[in-house]
Amino acid sequence: MARLKTSARKTSPATDVLLMATPTKNADLRWFSGFHASDPFPAFSIGGRKVGLLPLLEVGRAKQESALDEVLNLTEIINDLRQTNPTAGVPDAIVFAAVQRGVHRFRVPADFPAGLFVRLGELGLELTPVTGALFPHRWVKSKAELAGIRAGNRAACAGFKAVEKALAESKPDKKGKLFWKGAVLTAEVLQDEVQAAVIRAGGLCDTGLICAPGDQAVDCHCQGSGPLYAGQLLVLDIFPRDRASWNYGDMTRTYLKGKATPEQRRMVTAVKEAHGRILKALRAGKTGAEIHRIPVDYFQSLGYHTGAVKGTYVGFFHGSGHGLGYDIHEEPYLSLRNPAPLQAGNAITVEPGLYYPGIGGCRFEDCVVITAKGCELLSKHPYRWEIA
Amino acid sequence: MARLKTSARKTSPATDVLLMATPTKNADLRWFSGFHASDPFPAFSIGGRKVGLLPLLEVGRAKQESALDEVLNLTEIINDLRQTNPTAGVPDAIVFAAVQRGVHRFRVPADFPAGLFVRLGELGLELTPVTGALFPHRWVKSKAELAGIRAGNRAACAGFKAVEKALAESKPDKKGKLFWKGAVLTAEVLQDEVQAAVIRAGGLCDTGLICAPGDQAVDCHCQGSGPLYAGQLLVLDIFPRDRASWNYGDMTRTYLKGKATPEQRRMVTAVKEAHGRILKALRAGKTGAEIHRIPVDYFQSLGYHTGAVKGTYVGFFHGSGHGLGYDIHEEPYLSLRNPAPLQAGNAITVEPGLYYPGIGGCRFEDCVVITAKGCELLSKHPYRWEIA
Repeated sequence: MARLKTSARKTSPATDVLLMATPTKNADLRWFSGFHASDPFPAFSIGGRKVGLLPLLEVGRAKQESALDEVLNLTEIINDLRQTNPTAGVPDAIVFAAVQRGVHRFRVPADFPAGLFVRLGELGLELTPVTGALFPHRWVKSKAELAGIRAGNRAACAGFKAVEKALAESKPDKKGKLFWKGAVLTAEVLQDEVQAAVIRAGGLCDTGLICAPGDQAVDCHCQGSGPLYAGQLLVLDIFPRDRASWNYGDMTRTYLKGKATPEQRRMVTAVKEAHGRILKALRAGKTGAEIHRIPVDYFQSLGYHTGAVKGTYVGFFHGSGHGLGYDIHEEPYLSLRNPAPLQAGNAITVEPGLYYPGIGGCRFEDCVVITAKGCELLSKHPYRWEIA
Repeated sequence: MARLKTSARKTSPATDVLLMATPTKNADLRWFSGFHASDPFPAFSIGGRKVGLLPLLEVGRAKQESALDEVLNLTEIINDLRQTNPTAGVPDAIVFAAVQRGVHRFRVPADFPAGLFVRLGELGLELTPVTGALFPHRWVKSKAELAGIRAGNRAACAGFKAVEKALAESKPDKKGKLFWKGAVLTAEVLQDEVQAAVIRAGGLCDTGLICAPGDQAVDCHCQGSGPLYAGQLLVLDIFPRDRASWNYGDMTRTYLKGKATPEQRRMVTAVKEAHGRILKALRAGKTGAEIHRIPVDYFQSLGYHTGAVKGTYVGFFHGSGHGLGYDIHEEPYLSLRNPAPLQAGNAITVEPGLYYPGIGGCRFEDCVVITAKGCELLSKHPYRWEIA
């Protein structure tokens, strides 16, 4: 196996990157390689060139489908190395391929596997984990990526339509419990309806979806379960991956079967107004923290308190939005912790909400792309929430 | 922040484990914590106790739903630490929680994030990446896990039924191109039918599915595309996650609309026979390599050559099976590279196949659990492949 000459090492920071991940689970590698596979493989850059080491079974497909400039046969390299080193494996193949191309230092992402990190160090590669994002330019989306996010949101809309249809067709019994097609209408039934509608529209809810009635929605990551009732607020958060492009959409609508109480109506109106105020304020140059202050201050001005009450967080206790694309949650975040200015081309969600036990939860969420002068919607669906 | 006393360190190997991952993407953490979340969090063991550090938004749900013995509020810990250390973050919170409980050394999985690995080392934790599996006992399945794999396979069967229905209802034109419901029947149309049927059956094809006609199936990870024709072999590989239990099923059936050629029939018969021979041979104590030799030798005895022909691998060039459960591909593998004996309770796929350009591909795949005396099927669906 090739050995490194330590004397050849330079002292300037490494510019090339090395990744080892499964594209279906890792947005950086999907973005870097343009390749979708369910098993892990290593890939690195040399200057502007992208090199991937693919197992035998993936080599043909990677040559045809990926954005890699060079596709090496990992299986063959390991077999060759084993002729002189019977224990050679993936780490040895990475070192061999890198050194053969004159590179022995890489930046690696913070989530690079520690076992491989240690082993490659023993084999002589110099690796530096980055502290922030490996590819910060990934947060500025291409036209194709924006089209993918739009497609994900179109699939989400198909889900909302299915929910609206089921709620409109459902009837409450004397206690308000909803029935649909001869059976109790549950959160689970609606979740299945959404999943099926999203599939038909080219999407896939691969990380779940939220259909949370009443007080369940106060825990804003609770996916929801059980029978639905008239007069309950119902939070539907649908965040499907567009199957063709692997980009996520992310939208939320709030519904109520029947007639809302004045308290519910006041809360929904406040959330919708906050949503509109954020959309109006967004533009390149504003920071995530500045934007997040808008709904925070607005809700406070209306007397909506945020904080822990008997161990449960109530009010508006999550961020106003997050980046999305190949990951469902990416930078930049609309939160007090983000002092960085937004850039034109950032794709982000806008999702204010309010949550109080006894009233329920309400959230409206859309996606936008940031522009120099404002933002453009990447999602479109009515906000009609009371369903007769 | 708590500082470590290096004098207190012991020299025996660390037994406690530390994980930092996203459960939706990491089977070890899902198994360890019994908790499903779309964002990463750290968790560790102290003796038999499991401790998780959950962000504010997940604390309530984790206390209710997880298998963790102790759920700490990560957000609060970080906020407390920031009173004396304004840059405190997740690494500092992990060190604080561990040291408070008297632990400063952990085993970490090979895929532990390298950035955190380095930072925790700087903060004084002693971390050892394991080289093999972190939880080898994860490959011996509980009854609940086996039920989950069965449920995943039932969802796969719903997909096969949808395919069989569409193929039976389809009609070829003069050139053999299949039409269904007034339109060309494509691999994509069948994929959508499968996805929808799987959803209705409680599953989710979150890592894709294969519907590969003719020579496309020779690249055995090609998902398949384009119009389908009568007389073509069609490989359907459906590997859904059971949404309730997060366990995967994995099954493959091969179909042909119309009448097979003698060459196709001979190949399908050989694969089906190899599949049966593996099932007969499986039992605790046999090694993955021993089992894999069975179809390899059998195919060879029939004259089916395996190897590269003009750069394309033909014959039987993949393993005979793999473990599955919380991951779609797990140990133990049925391959020449696995000299370890199978254990009672291992859940594995059995999936011999043959692939030749001009004939097409054929694979039959079922799941079994290994027992002391043999194996039991975890999947059940007919093998009828010619569809009139």
